[in-house]
Parts: sequence; structure tokens; C-alpha cells
Amino acid sequence: MKKHNNASSSPLKIIPLGGLEQVGLNITAFEYEDSIVVVDCGLAFPEDDMLGIDLCIPDDTYLKDNLSRVKGFVITHGHEDHIGALPYILRDINVPIYATKLTIGLIDRKLDEHGLLRTVRRKVVDFGQSINLGSFRIEFIKTNHSIADASALAIYSPAGIVVHTGDFKVDYTPVFGDAIDLQRFGEIGKKGVLALMCDSTNAERPGFTNSEKTIGKVFDSLFQDHLKSRIIIATFASNVDRVQQIINTACRYGRKVVVEGRSMVNIIETAGQLGYINVPEHTLIDSEQLNNYPDERTVIITTGSQGESMAALSRMAQDIHRKIHIKANDTIIFSSHPIPGNEKAVSRVINELEARGAEVIFEDVHVSGHACREEIKLIYSLVKPRYAIPVHGELRHRHAQAEIALELGIPKENILMLHSGDVLSLSEEEGAAVTEHVPTGSIFVDGLGVGDVGNIVLRDRQRLAEDGIVIIVLTLEKGTGQILAGPDIVSRGFVYVRDSDILLEEALDDLAEKRITDWGKIKNTMRDVLSDYLWKKTKRRPMILPIIMEV
Amino acid sequence: MKKHNNASSSPLKIIPLGGLEQVGLNITAFEYEDSIVVVDCGLAFPEDDMLGIDLCIPDDTYLKDNLSRVKGFVITHGHEDHIGALPYILRDINVPIYATKLTIGLIDRKLDEHGLLRTVRRKVVDFGQSINLGSFRIEFIKTNHSIADASALAIYSPAGIVVHTGDFKVDYTPVFGDAIDLQRFGEIGKKGVLALMCDSTNAERPGFTNSEKTIGKVFDSLFQDHLKSRIIIATFASNVDRVQQIINTACRYGRKVVVEGRSMVNIIETAGQLGYINVPEHTLIDSEQLNNYPDERTVIITTGSQGESMAALSRMAQDIHRKIHIKANDTIIFSSHPIPGNEKAVSRVINELEARGAEVIFEDVHVSGHACREEIKLIYSLVKPRYAIPVHGELRHRHAQAEIALELGIPKENILMLHSGDVLSLSEEEGAAVTEHVPTGSIFVDGLGVGDVGNIVLRDRQRLAEDGIVIIVLTLEKGTGQILAGPDIVSRGFVYVRDSDILLEEALDDLAEKRITDWGKIKNTMRDVLSDYLWKKTKRRPMILPIIMEV
Repeated sequence: MKKHNNASSSPLKIIPLGGLEQVGLNITAFEYEDSIVVVDCGLAFPEDDMLGIDLCIPDDTYLKDNLSRVKGFVITHGHEDHIGALPYILRDINVPIYATKLTIGLIDRKLDEHGLLRTVRRKVVDFGQSINLGSFRIEFIKTNHSIADASALAIYSPAGIVVHTGDFKVDYTPVFGDAIDLQRFGEIGKKGVLALMCDSTNAERPGFTNSEKTIGKVFDSLFQDHLKSRIIIATFASNVDRVQQIINTACRYGRKVVVEGRSMVNIIETAGQLGYINVPEHTLIDSEQLNNYPDERTVIITTGSQGESMAALSRMAQDIHRKIHIKANDTIIFSSHPIPGNEKAVSRVINELEARGAEVIFEDVHVSGHACREEIKLIYSLVKPRYAIPVHGELRHRHAQAEIALELGIPKENILMLHSGDVLSLSEEEGAAVTEHVPTGSIFVDGLGVGDVGNIVLRDRQRLAEDGIVIIVLTLEKGTGQILAGPDIVSRGFVYVRDSDILLEEALDDLAEKRITDWGKIKNTMRDVLSDYLWKKTKRRPMILPIIMEV
Repeated sequence: MKKHNNASSSPLKIIPLGGLEQVGLNITAFEYEDSIVVVDCGLAFPEDDMLGIDLCIPDDTYLKDNLSRVKGFVITHGHEDHIGALPYILRDINVPIYATKLTIGLIDRKLDEHGLLRTVRRKVVDFGQSINLGSFRIEFIKTNHSIADASALAIYSPAGIVVHTGDFKVDYTPVFGDAIDLQRFGEIGKKGVLALMCDSTNAERPGFTNSEKTIGKVFDSLFQDHLKSRIIIATFASNVDRVQQIINTACRYGRKVVVEGRSMVNIIETAGQLGYINVPEHTLIDSEQLNNYPDERTVIITTGSQGESMAALSRMAQDIHRKIHIKANDTIIFSSHPIPGNEKAVSRVINELEARGAEVIFEDVHVSGHACREEIKLIYSLVKPRYAIPVHGELRHRHAQAEIALELGIPKENILMLHSGDVLSLSEEEGAAVTEHVPTGSIFVDGLGVGDVGNIVLRDRQRLAEDGIVIIVLTLEKGTGQILAGPDIVSRGFVYVRDSDILLEEALDDLAEKRITDWGKIKNTMRDVLSDYLWKKTKRRPMILPIIMEV
């Protein structure tokens, strides 16, 4: 391993600001003296208990506090969990963005939606090219993934080189562009790499991930087997190569192609403009034109492969899609696997489609975009890092990668299981240590509000969701405390209005019997008496909200 | 096929009152002239959008309307989706229950909890034995499943024989009791079977389900590999044979056994009393005694294998279990697969356990209790029914069974895909037809309330969950309509109280500017003005509740 001569050099700091406790929210700061570079800036989709939340973004306090030192965002690829928080974070930290062409194309679309296109600088970087940001030089290395133009990064600092894989797989026969640049991984490895930050998503899965190209053959054979049906294929909007393969097969079988679903249309448009997808003329038609062609001459490529309730496929399944209605002659192909948590939603859509008589195919029409165990071993063996820092994936996946690193001979103490907010200090001389912690967390985005819904509001929503609310309202005479009107009781989400009337009247009687005299405590008393009464009668705990007006 | 000579005989009616549109809620009425027999009486667990609902039970209107003709409940096995609604339905329809010994034991426990033990008649039936209920004779046939004492039913009626498999698998080497009585299926098949109602749960899976016994060998080898750890095994409370195998392995390796989790303790107690589990003396210890033994001498069998948030394992994972604290020296084995919908919850628990340093094993330590494709083919080939009625499973699974039946030569028109509420009329002479429909549905149980939460209340809860509630309250003088107090605004689950104050004050100003004069319309106007204002400012739609008091 290469040794640095400058023994007094500062350490490199690696500060994951998110992404280690959940899927998504990927954002990591690399810091050397007065230079900070941020790799990725992703969102996370809300967990089931985050009621009403649209999305989560990382806490950027540390970056704001060190604004003058932040040199730029370097983005590995264009998935939401790597770019989705940019429009929010850029409001605080407006520094240039560096990424490959398609990635910048997708970021541009996002910035445009948020009115940030004029104020934010973006720069397209080619594979093999490097950029200089303060003390850092960052080289983009070609990888493969389920979106085109994915990149690994070699991050050169005076304290040593870090290789960050981004999300990746090894595809020797990619549909578009080159295979992963394994030679370059080896070459950089030979120079001596301080740390490898490697994708853990599939670290529990043995073997190798199949090439994207294998799915093209599956489409060919499915089209051959369903010459008489209309074919509808659901897949991930951002999997441009998958869409390309569907289009290729459609052309071979003389079918016109409809693209459905806003995100799919958007991404295909961007990919087309930038030359990442090749659609022969007269292939695409509009959904309005479907009626001009017989079923066996059409294919619909659609969003909704995860059972998302508002996506095009779900609307078709429920027959609330404006233009496309499922028929018994439809063959619907899920070219996807359910992401954990979406299994039931996907199953519901499959059931709905089958209930309309359609045939549904959902097995073996998808390959993952993430490296399995043997691919992870390959990257480790090329890079041969001194330290292993498993990233991207839940803890169980990162642990699985740690096992692999151990198996490959990396000493246990050199396998670093970080938490978001850890400040990892790394140098050839001093070794590795978590020296500090910085603030991190999920900021909730709900409608236009960023951060105005926190845990208290969420807890209220959970309580309201569970048993509803009972409001008791009373008008008192100022001074005397005499009741002028009420108490009236109103409830929502508690029990049927008719049933609730009787129940609530009884509750009022119960309240009256208590002959509350201490009007200072009236609100608390009302709350307690009602709560006890309703629990006794219903074993439910609605939120109880006493409101007193004084006249 | 045997022919009946009485050409004028009535048809047999099969009326699924639930269970065909979802997993759970299994209940089917068999009707011949003045006799009705009900097979199973299960609950369903609430879907994600059924906020605050504890469980769902079937609509029993049809049975109530025909009370005098209902002869009894015949129960195939003791899982909640087959017995769980009994305590509710029995309040309306108090008829005797017939089932095998362990099944009655589990039902008894349930009836006892609901204070129904004295008023409901139960009768234990042995395998091979028949009971006469009105025009029906019903024979219990041994099967295998993930709970002991599971039974198929041969339902003999003057219109022909129906074979109902219940939930089943084929286990040639069961842990307890006999293998499935394949000979009897064959013998009854030879007599001529009108219809087969067969479990579809695993109809999408190729091959054969492995024997429960294979898991015993897995436990042996896991115990051998972890001689120094404390071992914690999570599995389904009702899988008595699984627990038996853990106890067997524990004894072989000289470990004491703790059973944790209320449902696990209850079922093991019942199974022990009835002779379905054999625990050598001095094997079981209390969790309090754990400290008296070294880690490598103990095993904890626990509930929580589905990531249920209140189950023992989840509490251990979060370190809120009163007695058991996870240590780095623990090996935790999930002897289960996540039921669809529970994947994320299970993953969360795995992550939490690994975060405490424990080793977690979750692969290949479980076999299903349901028949795969080859087993379904076997049963069809033994029974050779005239009609196939796929049951138990989502539509996609029932469709998969229909494909199997077709493949085995059953004509398409004889494969009957029923909906809940269909009245299927069957006779050798007249054939099969859905002649009527009866009311069905899910009745929600929430706390003590049965059926008092319906779709309106649920929709309110969903709305409250999404964006919270804003209450605007006003006291007016009766007659003049002059405002005496307010308007005051209170919100819950909307935005942070501090932020909301400003927002709501602005909203009030907005309302004031409208100078509402038509007091008759005041509530609607207040709701509309506030709703528009808040949507414009926040892109959220909280529930808005105007309350007006008159003095």
C-alpha cells in the first residue's frame, strides 16, 4: 500500500449525513481541512407510521454550519434516493452539482419543477474524467445499475483515496453503453486505496446478478407466446434500458408502443433527448390512438409495478384509468420485484387485474440493479482497500457485507460500521476513529411544508387515525363561570354518528353528575371523565379536546 | 361417477360467506333443503387502510335470517382465520361446534375469554368419525398442516359428496400423529365426488412442501454450530410441532427452555394438557430463572416472528422487554417466513437485533403448512371431483389452482371461481349454477364495538391521519346572530402548534374579510374559506370542523 510522506497531514473525514439507518436519504460529506464535498443528496419515502408525510429529506444542519467550505455536490446516479432531496437542500446550500449526463438531465427536470434551474450550477462529467473541488480530486468510474449512467467515484485526498461504488452491479453485457470499468477499479486499487464504500443492498444474496440483457430474451419469448394478446408491461420508470428492450421486442413483433404514467413519460423524454434511448420512428403512439390498432399490434409500457395506488397500472386495475381499460385479452407483465413493504399492494393489483380476466405474469421478468455477493467480492478484490465501510442498505445488508469483507481477509477492526452523523477520521498514519457526531435526522415534507410536521404532530395523527377525536365545547360567562351554552359534544372517526349520539349523551350525563365546581380544572376534568367513560364503554381512546369559550 | 336415482332431489347449495376476496374470514354454509351446516368461522386481520380496527368478522346476516335451519359449525382446524370469529358469531347463532380435539381445546380457550363456555355446546370428533347434522353427514379426514389436528371434511348430502380440504399439506413423516389419510381421499373419490374445495394458498409454488421433520434436522445443526450462544427462536405460537422439535433439540443439547409471549404460552399449555406436546420434566423454566443458567444452557422460544410490534421478540429487540435483554452472545433464529405485508416489520426487528450485536438467522428454518402444486395435483387425482372449487387464498392463488385443475382434465366450465355471497346450486342432474346472492362483508371490531365503525368513520380516520383536523368555534347570540365569542381556531395533527398559530390567525383574518352575512350558511362558508386558505398556504387538506354555539 502506498505510503504518504507527509506524516503531519490532516485526516480525511467521512461524515454520512443519512442513509445508514434506512433505505434512501443517501448523503455523505467528505471533508479535508477547508474542503467539503457532498456525495449524493437523496430523499427517503415515508415509513408506514409517518402518516400524511410525502417524503423525507436529510437534516443539512452540518452543511449549513460549514457553508463556506462546501465545494459541491457529486451525484452517483439519478435515482430519487440519490438526487431527490437536492431541490430542498439547494435552498440552503447552493453549490454546483457534478454528475454524468443522464443524471444531470434528470436533476435538471427536478430543478425546473422547483424553479431552481437558473440559480443552480450543474456540470456534466464524463466517465474517466476528474473534477477538482478544493483539496479533492474526484474521478467518475463507469459502473452498471438499473438506471443508465451510474458512476462510482474515486475520491482522491491528501490523506488517501476512497472508492465509493454508488449503487452498482457488474453487467458484462449491458444493454446500453459500456460494462463496468473493472480495469480502472484494479488500477486504482494498485495505487493503494484507503477505504472502500460499497453498495450492500444485495449482500445477503449469493452468486451474481444476471445481466439486464437476459430480460430482452424473456420479452422475446413472452411476446412469442402471446401473439394474440394486447401486452401491458409495468416496470420502473427510471429503468431506461428495460424500456429500450421492450421497445426492441415490440418492433421485432410489429407492435406499436404506448408509454403511460407521468414519471415514465418524463424520464423517457429526457433519456430520448440525451440519446440514452433509441426509439425507431412510428413506434410510439398516443394512448388515444390505441383504438386504431388491433390488440395484438400494441404494447403499453406503464408505471405502477410497485402497486402504487395512484400509478397508471393501479388505475387500470381499478378501471378508473381514463383511456385504458383492462380486457380479458390482456397479458400484463410485471417486469419488477416488489420492493420490501410493497408486496401486499402489488398483490392487490394482481388480484384486481386477474378479476378482470387478464393474464398476469410476474415471475422471472426482472433482474436486480445491485451487486450480489460474488460481485461484491470482485470489487473488494480489485480495490483491496485498507478499510471497508459498507454503505447502502439496511443494517442487516451492511452486516452481510461486513461478513464478506472479513472472509476476504480484511481485519475485523478495519471494517467500519458507521451510523449517520458519525465523523469518521481516517489517515494512513493515525488509522480510523469516529471522533465526533453531527446532527442528522429525517426532515418531513408534507405538501408545501418542510419540517413543520414533527413527532408531536405525527403522534397526534397516529392517535386520530387509531380512534378519532371527541370534541367537547362549552360557553361560560366571564367572571361567574356560569354555563351559557353546551356542553356539546362532536366526534369524528370515533363511532357511527347515530351510535355516537347516545354514547356521547350518556357521557355528558356522566360529566354532569361529577358536578365540577373547580372551573380552573374544568378542561382536565372534562378530559379525564370523558376518557374514562369512553374507555369503559368502548375500550377505545379517542383524542379528547375540550374547548371553552368565555362570553 | 355414481348416479343418484332420485331425479327430483333438491340441489346442494354452497354459500361462501367470506374468505374468497381476502386471506382469512373463512366461513362457508352448506345447505340442503332445511339443513344448513357452517364450515369454519374465521376472522381476518385488518388491512393497512382500516385504521384503528382490531379485527374483521364475517357478516352473518344470512345465517341469522335462517337461524332455525342452522345445525352446527364444523371447524377444520384451530387457526384464527378459521375459528377467530366464533365468539362474535355465536352471540347471534348459538349452535353446536364440531371439531377435532386440539381444535376444540383452542376454541374452548377463546369461548372462556368471552364468557361463552357455559352456553355453547362443543363436541370432539375423531378422524374417520362422522357426524350427522340434518340432511348432512360429515366425515373428518386426517390431513397435515402447520397446526396439529387439522382435518379435511367429506360432506355427504343427498345431492352428492363434497370434499373440503381445509388448509392442508401432504406430510409423509409428520412430527406428531399420522400422515394425511390419502387412502381415504382415494376411497371417497372412488364413490364419486361432486365437488372438491381445495386450499389454494401455495398453488403458485411448484413442487412439494417439505416435511415438518426436515426442520428438526436444521435445529440440530444450528444448535451444533452455536454451542456457546444463548439461542432465541421465534416461530408461530400455534405451530405446536415446531415447538416440539425445538424442545427435542434443546433436550439433546442439554438446554433449558423458556416459552415467551402470551399466545405461545396459552397454546403450549392447551397442547400440553391435551397430549399434543411432550415436554420432558425439568425442561421448561421461567424467564426469571434464566440468570441461574449459563447462556449456552438455555433456549428461548418466543412469539414475534412476524415483527408484530407488541410481541415478545419485538420488545426484546427494542430492549423494552421486562426480563429478557438481547446480548452480543445471542443467536436469534426466525423459524418462519414473513406473511405478505409483514416483510418490513420483520426486517425492522432483524435490524434492531443485529444493532445489539446478536447474530440473526432467517433462511431455511421454516416449511410452509400449505400444499404446493404437486400436492394439489395429488389430491385432485385421488378425489377426481366433477367440479373444482378453488378456495383459501387470494384470487391469484385460486386462479393458479384453476390452471392446475384444467391441466388435470377438469373441463373449464366445471371449474367454479366463486365470490363471497354467491349461492352455488349443485346437483348431479342439473349441474352447477350460481342462482342467488346473499349479503356478505367485513364487520369491523374495534375495542368492544362490533360493527359500529363503518366506512364513514374509516374515511374520517384516514382524513385525520393524512392532514389532521382544524376546529373553528364561535358563540353567537340567539336571534341576533351577533358574535359573542370567537371565532377561535384549534388544530391537532396539522402543523406544529407554534407555526399553526400564525397560519390560523391569518386564516381568521381571511375569514373576517369575507364579511359573512348569511348566518344560515355560516358553517359551510367557514369550512370553504378555511379549506381554500389552508390548501393555498400548505397544499394540505385537514378536516375542518366548524362548531357554532348559541347563547
